[in-house]
Amino acid sequence: MSAVLQKALRTPGLIQEADSAVVFIDLSYLSERIRHLRSLFPSTTLHAVAVKANPLFRILQVIEATGAGLEAASIGELALAMEAGVPPERIVYDSPVKTRSEIRTALQALVHINADSILELDRIAEIIAGGTPVRSVGIRINPQVGTGRIAMTSVAGTYSKFGEPLLESRDLLIDRFMRYPWLVGVHVHVGSQGCGPELLLSGVKRVLDFAAEVRRRTSKDRIRIFDIGGGLPVSYHRDGVVIDMEGYSQALFERFPELQDYLLITEFGRWIHANTAWAASRIEYVKQTGDTRTAMIHVGADMFLRKCYRSDEWHHELTVVDDRGRLKSDEHASPCVVAGPLCFAGDVLARDIPLPDMAEGDYVLIHDVGAYTFSMWSRYNSRQLPKFIGYENDGERFEVVKDRERLEDVCRFWK
Amino acid sequence: MSAVLQKALRTPGLIQEADSAVVFIDLSYLSERIRHLRSLFPSTTLHAVAVKANPLFRILQVIEATGAGLEAASIGELALAMEAGVPPERIVYDSPVKTRSEIRTALQALVHINADSILELDRIAEIIAGGTPVRSVGIRINPQVGTGRIAMTSVAGTYSKFGEPLLESRDLLIDRFMRYPWLVGVHVHVGSQGCGPELLLSGVKRVLDFAAEVRRRTSKDRIRIFDIGGGLPVSYHRDGVVIDMEGYSQALFERFPELQDYLLITEFGRWIHANTAWAASRIEYVKQTGDTRTAMIHVGADMFLRKCYRSDEWHHELTVVDDRGRLKSDEHASPCVVAGPLCFAGDVLARDIPLPDMAEGDYVLIHDVGAYTFSMWSRYNSRQLPKFIGYENDGERFEVVKDRERLEDVCRFWK
Repeated sequence: MSAVLQKALRTPGLIQEADSAVVFIDLSYLSERIRHLRSLFPSTTLHAVAVKANPLFRILQVIEATGAGLEAASIGELALAMEAGVPPERIVYDSPVKTRSEIRTALQALVHINADSILELDRIAEIIAGGTPVRSVGIRINPQVGTGRIAMTSVAGTYSKFGEPLLESRDLLIDRFMRYPWLVGVHVHVGSQGCGPELLLSGVKRVLDFAAEVRRRTSKDRIRIFDIGGGLPVSYHRDGVVIDMEGYSQALFERFPELQDYLLITEFGRWIHANTAWAASRIEYVKQTGDTRTAMIHVGADMFLRKCYRSDEWHHELTVVDDRGRLKSDEHASPCVVAGPLCFAGDVLARDIPLPDMAEGDYVLIHDVGAYTFSMWSRYNSRQLPKFIGYENDGERFEVVKDRERLEDVCRFWK
Repeated sequence: MSAVLQKALRTPGLIQEADSAVVFIDLSYLSERIRHLRSLFPSTTLHAVAVKANPLFRILQVIEATGAGLEAASIGELALAMEAGVPPERIVYDSPVKTRSEIRTALQALVHINADSILELDRIAEIIAGGTPVRSVGIRINPQVGTGRIAMTSVAGTYSKFGEPLLESRDLLIDRFMRYPWLVGVHVHVGSQGCGPELLLSGVKRVLDFAAEVRRRTSKDRIRIFDIGGGLPVSYHRDGVVIDMEGYSQALFERFPELQDYLLITEFGRWIHANTAWAASRIEYVKQTGDTRTAMIHVGADMFLRKCYRSDEWHHELTVVDDRGRLKSDEHASPCVVAGPLCFAGDVLARDIPLPDMAEGDYVLIHDVGAYTFSMWSRYNSRQLPKFIGYENDGERFEVVKDRERLEDVCRFWK
């Protein structure tokens, strides 16, 4: 990262005075992640990358170019996916609460739709009966296998706001498969970050057993799409245990060879994006208050909601480099607070972490920011979304993925 | 609220099919709040309403028309305030981390600036020495009187990321007052919500004593501006204890009659805005999962970050009305979950609260959303910011304050 920043700082015009913070995205690594993912699944698998993890338009286009698809969890994400040029057969529309008009839009776009509940399924049926076309529909099933370490990102407890619960609704679900010829898919999702692979696998197993039962009671092809969702945790700690996609996919197909009878869909977002990006913020001031040093930087709870609001559950490694991007020695590191720019006491990225000597103009590098950070950008204090720079081959080539937001655009938002 | 919603639903074209959620703002009450505030302080007081609490452009214009001013905590908020037509003498620029270019912009705009630290003060001095004009500058002092019930909104602990700590920096502060003729103000802020009036008063006292000392050691007029900040807590509970502004201002001037020797600035945001607005979301589905009823609605952690991420600390009363706005009887109320539209398990507004029978098309009314809710709007899932409707005299007159965001504008944000 520091080598790439050094190159970027030396590239004329790339980082300007106003760019108090910049997000860097490793485009080579992003493509490599997707290529690796595709190599581990049957070639017919649709890898629908979760737009919500990283919705930058240019990044959606990069994903499209790899042959992968997109998963849209709202009508806005569907609009983005379509505008990015992803063909309908590579889009999955998954919003947890679809209005009638949104259902009509998605049906007419001929994308695959996952209904969140039987209620929603019946609503879709009504609209199809009224003459709207349909490609294919799945139903999201809550396998009720339990929650992971982080309640806020677990969706397969006995209760979940998502999906139709398998234990209570088994008969109703079978009934709908018998009635709706366009209902050809099942969708299972267990959680994102905090859920181990065993929990994910047990969710797949439950729904796979259910699908087999439907096939037995109807016909072999009654269910042809199996959407295993996303949710593989990634490492945010320097010494974190990495759960590799290779092991997960191997376990999937070894334990459940019948999975190969389905057209598979995946919805990985965090696994693909999290480690592809990092942020660099200039240090504006280093304040000394009693024994406490505070580095004041230019991103905080606007970009790192989860880190600031639930600091125990979310983590980003931090590194300090000088004004030319050179790594600072840890030799004389001492405890420090890293605070964001918002007028809000909770806007703090780290407390009491050891960091080297720091001065105005140095940079704090924030690691692993590619998923579920800037995609949640908060308008608090009406600050400008920073510049995004993509790079290839460790900085051989740079590309401005998105320019720093203009003040006019921030103001326009409130008009 | 239900009477106003009934009138709004009967007003042709005001609430459209696409308006799955709407925020209502009581413009009469807003003006009344400001009028009441002005009546309780000396007429020369500048009431600089915190933009960050509610940055809607039309609302800033309404505030301007009452004669009040605005407090801008970022360069974006400063741009908004100026564009809303607020004259510079009624604007306070307060960002906690000002870049050189931001300082230059604010100086040239001839607004009052509060420096966050002596470091920043010295930087301002450098820029002024270079020939940039200046109206007046204050210094934010952390009175170190302790934290309130909510750590995330408390700024006067022994340590705070904000302000210059009084205990450690007393001599340095006095030195700067002697050196900088344009340094004519002090600024104190204790916290917002969770801090009782006694804590706020003790913060004012500490800084008042300091100001008196500076005056003794220099001249009577060395400090002429006293910015008491904001921070008066408001009630979010039906039976909440209301701390009234009348009692607070009375206590201020009775205990500290010398306050009248200063030009006062206030920065109330929460107190002015919180109770002026409420949201109405259509219920899209009522799901039954085992024993649990879930109402799926159209705003969640996008508008209510704090409620969703720190549910124990933040509260909004909820009411259910039918599709014509009529209040539903509580007689057969039973426990219920109210979940937002985001693809995220933590997107839940309330768990296990008693609510009446509900059906698709009913509305959930969310009380007291005027401050620090939509102003933090999160882009997660790329959903559209809802429509804002202002009203006067309990719905005699309606006005679209801001239309529902268009999908094109959501997409543009990511390009």
